Amino acid sequence: MANKGILTVISGFSGAGKGTIMKELVARFPYFLSVSATTRKPRKGEIDGSDYFFHTRDSFEAMIQKEELIEWAEYVGNYYGTPREAVEKQLMEGKDVLLEIEMQGGMLVKEQFPDALLLFITPPNADELKRRLIGRGTETPEEINKRLSHACEEASYMKSYDYIVVNDELEKAVLDVHMMIQHQHCKVKNCGEQIQAIENDLLQFAKGDY
Amino acid sequence: MANKGILTVISGFSGAGKGTIMKELVARFPYFLSVSATTRKPRKGEIDGSDYFFHTRDSFEAMIQKEELIEWAEYVGNYYGTPREAVEKQLMEGKDVLLEIEMQGGMLVKEQFPDALLLFITPPNADELKRRLIGRGTETPEEINKRLSHACEEASYMKSYDYIVVNDELEKAVLDVHMMIQHQHCKVKNCGEQIQAIENDLLQFAKGDY
Repeated sequence: MANKGILTVISGFSGAGKGTIMKELVARFPYFLSVSATTRKPRKGEIDGSDYFFHTRDSFEAMIQKEELIEWAEYVGNYYGTPREAVEKQLMEGKDVLLEIEMQGGMLVKEQFPDALLLFITPPNADELKRRLIGRGTETPEEINKRLSHACEEASYMKSYDYIVVNDELEKAVLDVHMMIQHQHCKVKNCGEQIQAIENDLLQFAKGDY
Repeated sequence: MANKGILTVISGFSGAGKGTIMKELVARFPYFLSVSATTRKPRKGEIDGSDYFFHTRDSFEAMIQKEELIEWAEYVGNYYGTPREAVEKQLMEGKDVLLEIEMQGGMLVKEQFPDALLLFITPPNADELKRRLIGRGTETPEEINKRLSHACEEASYMKSYDYIVVNDELEKAVLDVHMMIQHQHCKVKNCGEQIQAIENDLLQFAKGDY
């Protein structure tokens, strides 16, 4: 009902199925999925502007300087970030925008877009999470410890999100996320125009203009 | 995911279809619909404890005195109110509770249950609302004016609700209300135990107990 689009941040534990949920959402509904910028080299088959916007370190740092990124971070020697212009343009045009980003990035988005909806995707329970962290028994103790410390860090952000989405059954998780986003349009703060229209109409009505 | 039930207040314009939505919700899902207490005389076919709890003025006033009602009001010489005990018992047992009440009552519920979800049901637009207020052209100007002043009063409460639910298509409105309530269980503040369990498990895991 609102004229402005809803900005949704989707984060979650590694292996929680975020990517699959995003793909389903974009395939079925008219969401705009933000494409990240990175300085990482394209992998085989990756398309510039579709998988990522590929940049040199210089051009990425220029974007940071000009505040053209909503959030950015450096992982393993490469920059990753969310270009601001496309997101703001889509929101203004009333399109709902999805950002699939890490928790630290999510917090930065929330600072700049206090109305953003923050969703945290998790496996159904801690046992399932454990299984996914341990993996198929082929990982070295170092790899497991790395995953573990990453998951501990991730878990500490859960409380800062708005909703926890359990990805037990994909179809249910996709519809849960979709409805959570769509219902943001029904929040009173996003229905100001509609409420005003009803109040104005009742006022006209009270003046006898019916 | 939460162990405690969600308390939902459903209000809305006269003729917005609240009653039909409530009936569908209770028929399809395990909601507890609170039964109001009243001093109004039972109409033909109405069952005590099912349609209303019928009381004398003395016993109703005793309930007010003993704070056994969450909210109450007097309309056209009769008392109406929401018995507290049944609502609190059902919530503690994890059952989601529905209250179909007037806006003033809704505000009193919110004061006592700050986590309550407040839903406002409206016809799809002001024109449709107008049609319903004017009725079938058989109403006297006095009746229309009475409905109008009531609707104006009702509209002034819209901003105090959490969500506006447009009852355009009944099936969609029923599922919207159902999902809005169910997603309250996914709100981070209602997932404390689940978040704690995941954090504890990751901690155990960090100690090498896997």
